[in-house]
Amino acid sequence: MHDADTLTDGGVVLSKGMQKEGPEKKKFNLFVGASVGPEVEDRWARMDMINRRYPHQVGKEISKGINAGRISFSDKHLSMFPQDLTYGYYSLQKKHGDPTKPLDWAIVEATAITEDGFIVPGASVGATPEIIQSAERIIIEVNTLIPNLEGLHDINQSFLPPNRQPYLITRPQDRIGRTAIPVDPDRVIAIVESRQPDNTGSNAPETEESRAIAAHLINFLSDEVSAGRLPKSLLPLQSGIGNVANSIIGGLADGPFEQVQVWTEVLQDTFISFFDSGKLSFATATSIRFSPEGFDHFYKNWATYKDRLLLRSQQVANSPEIIRRLGIIAMNTPLEVDIYAHANSTNALGSRMLNGLGGSADFLRNAKLSIMHTPSSRPTKTDPTGISCIVPFASHIDQTEHDLDVVVTEQGLADLRGLSPRERAPIIIQKCAHPDYRDSLMDYYDRALFECLKRGAGHEPHMLRNAFKMHLNFMEKGSMKVDKWD
Amino acid sequence: MHDADTLTDGGVVLSKGMQKEGPEKKKFNLFVGASVGPEVEDRWARMDMINRRYPHQVGKEISKGINAGRISFSDKHLSMFPQDLTYGYYSLQKKHGDPTKPLDWAIVEATAITEDGFIVPGASVGATPEIIQSAERIIIEVNTLIPNLEGLHDINQSFLPPNRQPYLITRPQDRIGRTAIPVDPDRVIAIVESRQPDNTGSNAPETEESRAIAAHLINFLSDEVSAGRLPKSLLPLQSGIGNVANSIIGGLADGPFEQVQVWTEVLQDTFISFFDSGKLSFATATSIRFSPEGFDHFYKNWATYKDRLLLRSQQVANSPEIIRRLGIIAMNTPLEVDIYAHANSTNALGSRMLNGLGGSADFLRNAKLSIMHTPSSRPTKTDPTGISCIVPFASHIDQTEHDLDVVVTEQGLADLRGLSPRERAPIIIQKCAHPDYRDSLMDYYDRALFECLKRGAGHEPHMLRNAFKMHLNFMEKGSMKVDKWD
Repeated sequence: MHDADTLTDGGVVLSKGMQKEGPEKKKFNLFVGASVGPEVEDRWARMDMINRRYPHQVGKEISKGINAGRISFSDKHLSMFPQDLTYGYYSLQKKHGDPTKPLDWAIVEATAITEDGFIVPGASVGATPEIIQSAERIIIEVNTLIPNLEGLHDINQSFLPPNRQPYLITRPQDRIGRTAIPVDPDRVIAIVESRQPDNTGSNAPETEESRAIAAHLINFLSDEVSAGRLPKSLLPLQSGIGNVANSIIGGLADGPFEQVQVWTEVLQDTFISFFDSGKLSFATATSIRFSPEGFDHFYKNWATYKDRLLLRSQQVANSPEIIRRLGIIAMNTPLEVDIYAHANSTNALGSRMLNGLGGSADFLRNAKLSIMHTPSSRPTKTDPTGISCIVPFASHIDQTEHDLDVVVTEQGLADLRGLSPRERAPIIIQKCAHPDYRDSLMDYYDRALFECLKRGAGHEPHMLRNAFKMHLNFMEKGSMKVDKWD
Repeated sequence: MHDADTLTDGGVVLSKGMQKEGPEKKKFNLFVGASVGPEVEDRWARMDMINRRYPHQVGKEISKGINAGRISFSDKHLSMFPQDLTYGYYSLQKKHGDPTKPLDWAIVEATAITEDGFIVPGASVGATPEIIQSAERIIIEVNTLIPNLEGLHDINQSFLPPNRQPYLITRPQDRIGRTAIPVDPDRVIAIVESRQPDNTGSNAPETEESRAIAAHLINFLSDEVSAGRLPKSLLPLQSGIGNVANSIIGGLADGPFEQVQVWTEVLQDTFISFFDSGKLSFATATSIRFSPEGFDHFYKNWATYKDRLLLRSQQVANSPEIIRRLGIIAMNTPLEVDIYAHANSTNALGSRMLNGLGGSADFLRNAKLSIMHTPSSRPTKTDPTGISCIVPFASHIDQTEHDLDVVVTEQGLADLRGLSPRERAPIIIQKCAHPDYRDSLMDYYDRALFECLKRGAGHEPHMLRNAFKMHLNFMEKGSMKVDKWD
């Protein structure tokens, strides 16, 4: 990025930088809408060819490089990344080439090129429209293994302020754009054929824990319908990825709600069964990430699904405007939640990046119901409940106390709506914490309350000297179980 | 709120609760759009008559009650508070009266009542439309001291999902509603006259520090115009309150930008001079909070200002949808910012509530340029620079690292756009920290980096055991200057 060149693949952007180590050592700045298959970046990361990588990633080698200090990474709200790219915020120091084009190279996947020369994307739109708009040179990779997906996408043009217009979407099925992406042919330097399938793995299997969480959630949603705060078909759902998300969607396929709609970021295999159950009427997302078997089924039965599915750019799919307007029900998994409902979505022990923020905050800030679900504890090498996912103070904060309505673990569900911090803490601890940690957390809260009230500072009671004691205990002794607070 | 009755004044809502202490002891739950004059609530707070107070406050007695544990308080994004009220999120346990009306009583200020019986508000719209919609009984207070402000307001109706529509606003001057608020006459139980002026104080005076901050910011904005990333008239400005905000707006009145527009939450006195300078073409907000002299001048010259000014409900003024669409330049003051650009807007030392979140996060999350400005240090009783506003880890986090583009103090300006956490920290420390703290903060960062890289966890380096050491040092010794990190 800073004084570097730039490339893309299915929404990948590359920026090739001459590094200080000498002219022989080339590194790339790699921008992707969000994540990308490990075949794209893990080899480069292993060979130390990546200088910068924004704004999300899932590979083992790439996160190793980030946490070892070799790769600069910054996670950004997925709704904002393409926008900031077009603002020039990722090319402030660009000193070569076209100053209006932040990216040197873009590699984009197509399943067809229309007669007008427009690109029909594959199973993801992501940031492709803005990446094409921002690149000096474009390589189109036509994937002939995948059927022509024309009609699956809704592609709108992205404008800059003061010329930006409202997104005229009031239902998940509303279209505001075309079915393909316009591209300036003068910047296309190559069209290549590919027959590589999306390199995805199996979906995370459900567990007893994930089923318990899903059951709590489905009960809660049923109660909201009974109380008249949600329609019988619910409101459009956003669901993260992972086994809890699978259990929830699986539970909904067997559940009491009919004509359900989905407005989400990524679709997983369980959505196929949700469609097949007849309970899901329409789903829209920015990307599909099925397992290899899932994709196989999907492409073979493309005609069955195509009228009930729409892929949009991530700027639209994750847009606060639309999420708030539609009144989305958002459900995501954190690493840890604290007793006042701040959540850590990204950095283990405050410092080690896992995958990045993704669109979690786009959805959780703006949803009508913002829900985080997590197991109450995780095992360590020596202790089957050595990590508590409920902590006194989150060691990194991506979602604030102002953003979460509900926290749920296999232990139970804490409905935090309308509660003050002093009301939230005991409820989160009693409903959500693992029994191994409940007394200790209540003890932290009671002592913090006592100390803070004494000095007239008791709105959100903390003992700052002990705020991270559970984390420190884990680092020293392999378990978050502290003997006592001091 | 929970099993309580409910009232309002200029957007105040009251909920009268029978407390456990006995039938003679009455307390109210008090909901206001945001803040309200101290005459409304400080006496009640002193007399311990307030049970719950949402979502923002500015009185001494009220914050004392909150921090002493007598008053339940929760700060919420101002864009969301009225919405959550209409969702029923503040009346989940309501057991008496009309279940579809969360509030028992509303007291709203009017400067006129139209022939149709609609209410023309005063110098604030706030949450008044939703409060009227949500109250069982309404008292209208007609303020005959203030001129009839008909035409100053743009009042749109608030719908619930799935029936919510786009806000068709693409410029600050766009109107989408009527000039008065509809009200159900059957619920109006009294119309009373008032001649009380808004109880405001003087504006915070500028200082050398605030002028230095403003100068850095105006230089930065000029550079953005030169680089072509902002139009010559800038993009609509949001500005918080306080002396830095005054210096910025004062600086803009003398500055190089013409035809500037403002889209903000609250207008202060300096906007009057900004209008009078001829450089401000249009301003819109949810509320006007001039000094008594400012209001006097404003009402006397009402004809001069009325076509260049519009007040909207806070759900619209603070709407992420519009803030993002317009590409607002947002500027707010935190209590402290950490070395990775997380900011604390609300709780001193993590626990003592000052005023609350307000709309800071509505704007900072969605703005095109998200700027936080603060003095680099503040004095304590014993040390003129005893508090550093740049800290290793913010003791409470309201704005995340994913939300801030620029941090500025009187020392300098840190442009964080496109930077990773490891790049941000040295820049924030070198550009923004007070020289008394610079070496110590760099030492924290260097040691954290060394330790975290060693264990392959160096994305956002921290020493959790020392993360709050500056805060603890302040609590023990009255200064944040630590001798050494251990």
